[in-house]
Amino acid sequence: RCISNTIDETKSGVDAFYLIYAASLVFFMQAGFAMVCAGSVRLKNLQNTMLKNLLDACGAALGFYTVGYAFAWGSSYPGIKVDNDELTFAGLSNFFLSDLDQKAFWLFQFSFAATSATIVAGALAERSQMLAYLLYSTALTAFVYPIVVHSIWTPNGFLSSFSANPLLGIGVIDYAGSLVVHVTGGQTALIAAHVLGARKGRFHEIDGRRIAKDFPGHSIALKMLGVFILWFGWYGFNAGSVYYITVKSNAVLAQNAVVNTTLSAAAGCISALLAKAWLSERQTGEATFSLTDALWGCLSGLVSVTGGCAIIDSWASIVIGLISGLIYLWGSNLLVKMQVDDAVDAIPIHLCSGVWGALSVGLFAVPEYVQLIHPGVTAAGWFYKINDGRLLACQVIGILFVLGWVTVLMLPFFGLLHYLGWLRADSLDEIVGLDISYHGANVLTNYNQGNINIADDNG
Amino acid sequence: RCISNTIDETKSGVDAFYLIYAASLVFFMQAGFAMVCAGSVRLKNLQNTMLKNLLDACGAALGFYTVGYAFAWGSSYPGIKVDNDELTFAGLSNFFLSDLDQKAFWLFQFSFAATSATIVAGALAERSQMLAYLLYSTALTAFVYPIVVHSIWTPNGFLSSFSANPLLGIGVIDYAGSLVVHVTGGQTALIAAHVLGARKGRFHEIDGRRIAKDFPGHSIALKMLGVFILWFGWYGFNAGSVYYITVKSNAVLAQNAVVNTTLSAAAGCISALLAKAWLSERQTGEATFSLTDALWGCLSGLVSVTGGCAIIDSWASIVIGLISGLIYLWGSNLLVKMQVDDAVDAIPIHLCSGVWGALSVGLFAVPEYVQLIHPGVTAAGWFYKINDGRLLACQVIGILFVLGWVTVLMLPFFGLLHYLGWLRADSLDEIVGLDISYHGANVLTNYNQGNINIADDNG
Amino acid sequence: RCISNTIDETKSGVDAFYLIYAASLVFFMQAGFAMVCAGSVRLKNLQNTMLKNLLDACGAALGFYTVGYAFAWGSSYPGIKVDNDELTFAGLSNFFLSDLDQKAFWLFQFSFAATSATIVAGALAERSQMLAYLLYSTALTAFVYPIVVHSIWTPNGFLSSFSANPLLGIGVIDYAGSLVVHVTGGQTALIAAHVLGARKGRFHEIDGRRIAKDFPGHSIALKMLGVFILWFGWYGFNAGSVYYITVKSNAVLAQNAVVNTTLSAAAGCISALLAKAWLSERQTGEATFSLTDALWGCLSGLVSVTGGCAIIDSWASIVIGLISGLIYLWGSNLLVKMQVDDAVDAIPIHLCSGVWGALSVGLFAVPEYVQLIHPGVTAAGWFYKINDGRLLACQVIGILFVLGWVTVLMLPFFGLLHYLGWLRADSLDEIVGLDISYHGANVLTNYNQGNINIADDNG
Repeated sequence: RCISNTIDETKSGVDAFYLIYAASLVFFMQAGFAMVCAGSVRLKNLQNTMLKNLLDACGAALGFYTVGYAFAWGSSYPGIKVDNDELTFAGLSNFFLSDLDQKAFWLFQFSFAATSATIVAGALAERSQMLAYLLYSTALTAFVYPIVVHSIWTPNGFLSSFSANPLLGIGVIDYAGSLVVHVTGGQTALIAAHVLGARKGRFHEIDGRRIAKDFPGHSIALKMLGVFILWFGWYGFNAGSVYYITVKSNAVLAQNAVVNTTLSAAAGCISALLAKAWLSERQTGEATFSLTDALWGCLSGLVSVTGGCAIIDSWASIVIGLISGLIYLWGSNLLVKMQVDDAVDAIPIHLCSGVWGALSVGLFAVPEYVQLIHPGVTAAGWFYKINDGRLLACQVIGILFVLGWVTVLMLPFFGLLHYLGWLRADSLDEIVGLDISYHGANVLTNYNQGNINIADDNG
Repeated sequence: RCISNTIDETKSGVDAFYLIYAASLVFFMQAGFAMVCAGSVRLKNLQNTMLKNLLDACGAALGFYTVGYAFAWGSSYPGIKVDNDELTFAGLSNFFLSDLDQKAFWLFQFSFAATSATIVAGALAERSQMLAYLLYSTALTAFVYPIVVHSIWTPNGFLSSFSANPLLGIGVIDYAGSLVVHVTGGQTALIAAHVLGARKGRFHEIDGRRIAKDFPGHSIALKMLGVFILWFGWYGFNAGSVYYITVKSNAVLAQNAVVNTTLSAAAGCISALLAKAWLSERQTGEATFSLTDALWGCLSGLVSVTGGCAIIDSWASIVIGLISGLIYLWGSNLLVKMQVDDAVDAIPIHLCSGVWGALSVGLFAVPEYVQLIHPGVTAAGWFYKINDGRLLACQVIGILFVLGWVTVLMLPFFGLLHYLGWLRADSLDEIVGLDISYHGANVLTNYNQGNINIADDNG
Repeated sequence: RCISNTIDETKSGVDAFYLIYAASLVFFMQAGFAMVCAGSVRLKNLQNTMLKNLLDACGAALGFYTVGYAFAWGSSYPGIKVDNDELTFAGLSNFFLSDLDQKAFWLFQFSFAATSATIVAGALAERSQMLAYLLYSTALTAFVYPIVVHSIWTPNGFLSSFSANPLLGIGVIDYAGSLVVHVTGGQTALIAAHVLGARKGRFHEIDGRRIAKDFPGHSIALKMLGVFILWFGWYGFNAGSVYYITVKSNAVLAQNAVVNTTLSAAAGCISALLAKAWLSERQTGEATFSLTDALWGCLSGLVSVTGGCAIIDSWASIVIGLISGLIYLWGSNLLVKMQVDDAVDAIPIHLCSGVWGALSVGLFAVPEYVQLIHPGVTAAGWFYKINDGRLLACQVIGILFVLGWVTVLMLPFFGLLHYLGWLRADSLDEIVGLDISYHGANVLTNYNQGNINIADDNG
């Protein structure tokens, strides 16, 4: 009896520790997103962009504390058996963190919600108003995103593999959230960037030819730092998604997840880098090795492996990564053709690679691993069971649901903001830079080096 | 028997792991402080400021190894029962880490001491001598800070809630150190900045009107990065302060701590940002959203919730954070009126919000949580027991003790340094910048971009 | 029975968690190396340098996945008893991660291999070709480094203390890899930098006097950030090297390791800083406190304590750190005399301090601690057993092996690359900067601040 108590205490301590650890790392990804955005914008909009990054973390904390968590996870603790097959649209308990035992689980889920929100920041950078951003990030983290979570990850969700009667007997499988987190954020970014319009001067016509002008970000070093911070944080994201590490099968899954995360990131980096070099060689006769493309390829690999990392083989994670690097390049190119302006390529990275990640689960999920995470669900990637396309079908349905749900809510939302004139910054403000317009800054105070006038500093 | 051994091994492994993890994160806060300081100073003093940040970490390691830990925790392991009610002024064992079993506990405590020391770096930036800084940081980490720790956190401390006969039956409750760490560092910063005087040109008079000239730091991106690193590290700071995670009550407390840490940081950020925008709108007719104020508000929220995060309700952490954002703005304003110059607003953030954090425990401590951490102590925040102000009284006494102790030692100390001419950098050195004067640097070598002369690089 | 299962699950969960945690931190050191390199090079080569940092992490992932891990650890799980005394040159199982249970162990070992590879990046910066770098980093992580690991760390290695019949009854003791990781990387850097030659304009003669021109890096703040990230990551490196934390002796060793890591880093920082100040005072009449030297001294302390941190006393770690700071300065000076050009002083830091670290184990290893990690091996540092120099002899043999092995493979390798014209960048490319030549960048797009022409940004 006494021993049994000690074990229980140790177990619960370890599980709390594990969630705190994983949540801390995922939270730290906010710094990564902030540095990626900071490095990608022009100096004149630096403060504005980073303030949005900061505010969506803070807004997500308050939004997810009040109602977001309740809508997503109310009465649906992970690991709890489902007694009936009741499907609900949203959870309706644990508002304001009430009656929540495992509070570290809230922190972990909050950090996911904040990730989903911050994905949009870069796509809207350099031309949107502060207020619009605040309204959108609250709406996303308090309602839009929680419903997606509830539907796919909780035992009461209508698409969930954890429910008693899952869709097609399987349900949608999205281990750490290629679909739930990245497609939700990425699709919001697409809608918002489309409604908002491009930055002034980004697309123009000369003699009938459409020209897309690049606006190189002001610091490549900050981009690099941001990507490494994100990669580091992703270990918390993908390992933490087993929730409890003191279950043997979860320890297997978590270890598989971190290895595959690494391999897919590496593969995505290399494929985007080399494909772009090959393309540039064909177009200009000289191969250019672009660090930015390598970095964004890395992120694409991370996004796309998030959905399946724990339940696929390592070779598959490399395949997924290699393809995601190409998908990113394709998506980025497509956006330019569609004249949608995305300062940090958030849409190709999170939306396109996220969709690919969700699909890839339907292709490569290993039956044995799926059993470990969804006991009783006999599902396999198409690659393993060529005559059973049910999982792949579930994944497609899941993708359509998320795209549809986000579009149905967010398109009118951003349309309304645009109609009210709350979305787009004033034209002159945009030209001088939002830092001067809204943040009382002088461009040179962001980095006032260069031509320093010492006398002037000492008035 | 054998099983019991295995459990013990697992438990001790987990506890060692937990402390190593938490200490690593707290140590990483040094990077956060360094980036906050680096971003806040002018380019001409960048090396000097960061060297101080580095040296106080290294000095704290040696100071805390030799005598600091012994004075603070000698013979007072946390979790050990107190046999008698003997109160001591300082611990007197474990010098040079001798006879210390749980060495990770040293690392955790060292990282706290280093935090306390580095708080001062920013306040003295851009005008103090190297030697003075070395002397002060050794004195603080080897003696001043350890005595505060001993008095408030160990079973033999005269203000401690862990002692056999605590003050008013309760003692001072300062969970992770709003008072012990931040007020100690912040009050030292206030005294030092007062004795040292303002940077040249910061305050001057024109036509009888006092003008405070802002010296904008050279990189807002580094400030942002620093704050996110600090927030990340704070999860180690506030979760780690339960020391042992394999105790059920501690797992509850640690989880509560990280959630409340998040909420208070978010609330502090938003309240400082909006209050400043409102003020600027009243003063100039146009609302300015200041990223720096949002960031410092965030830090204020973190500082103020540190004292009570594990033992308060979540709504209270939001209240504490909201108020701390206002306190920071008020304190920052007051300093300018008093013509005390603080390059990073360390004093409003750590001293003012630290005092508020210590007080807030007396207002919002939940009796049930207090029982978990101080078994046998029946204490409650004033909010919960309106006719029992004992805890609040203890907190006030604790605050007065720390302010008094630091002042009594540090005021003569800095006064002496000033009298000897060791404190303030030479006037000309300050004008050209300390990097050229002391560190053999050319300003442009810190960031020699801008007008790069390629030919010159290749001599 | 049931209880025993629960304990096993908890144990295996904790051990998986510990390796995931430690590996994540070691992986994050990639960001530290990248920032150190980024800060140390001139702006015109920033992208090129960071792309190499990124690619060696990605290349190491693929190289270590395919064959590297197999050559290093095939069939040699740590903690497994050795049945026979068969010594092998390389492991030959677990190719492509097949049949590997503890996958987090792969991640941990991969992150070490990536560290070894990235050490070289800085030394070759600003003048080497992309292709050469890719070829070298694959060769190192897939073959050269794994053989060193196999020889020194696995039960089948001919120099290993874990083998049944170790060399001189003891074998080489290199706890976390001063020798295995840092000397391997550092010696490769020396050979490569020697074959590659100095950057244009670095060494020249004026009136028969040899002049070494310093090329100050473009950002001291990024160097500082890099070192703090590395220090933080080092806690994962040195604590994680016990592999399993749920063994009592390992918990003792891991705690000892992190404390000694801290003390040696602090001591190395202070000794390099003060020694350089003293030297500059003697040479120029004025003491210069160089932040770069303090930072590199810090890293030297970390490198040199890596080999013995778990098995030495704390005072010894301070001695090791103090000496490593001087060794760094000496090595850095020697390189300049030999006209070997090393943009980030990787050779003095990793090679010289790495050799010192491996030797220091032979001087300061505490017999009791050695017993904990190598049960049955009775070995002691020379300091503790003055008439038994066997351990010191083993260490010297180990050092000679690593230096010899790396030289025998890498000298012809780099020689061949040089002969083929694949190693050194074109002379004109080097002068304009590799970013423009290879990466399609304009120098000013790395940090296009300074003279911002707003109109130009808006086409």
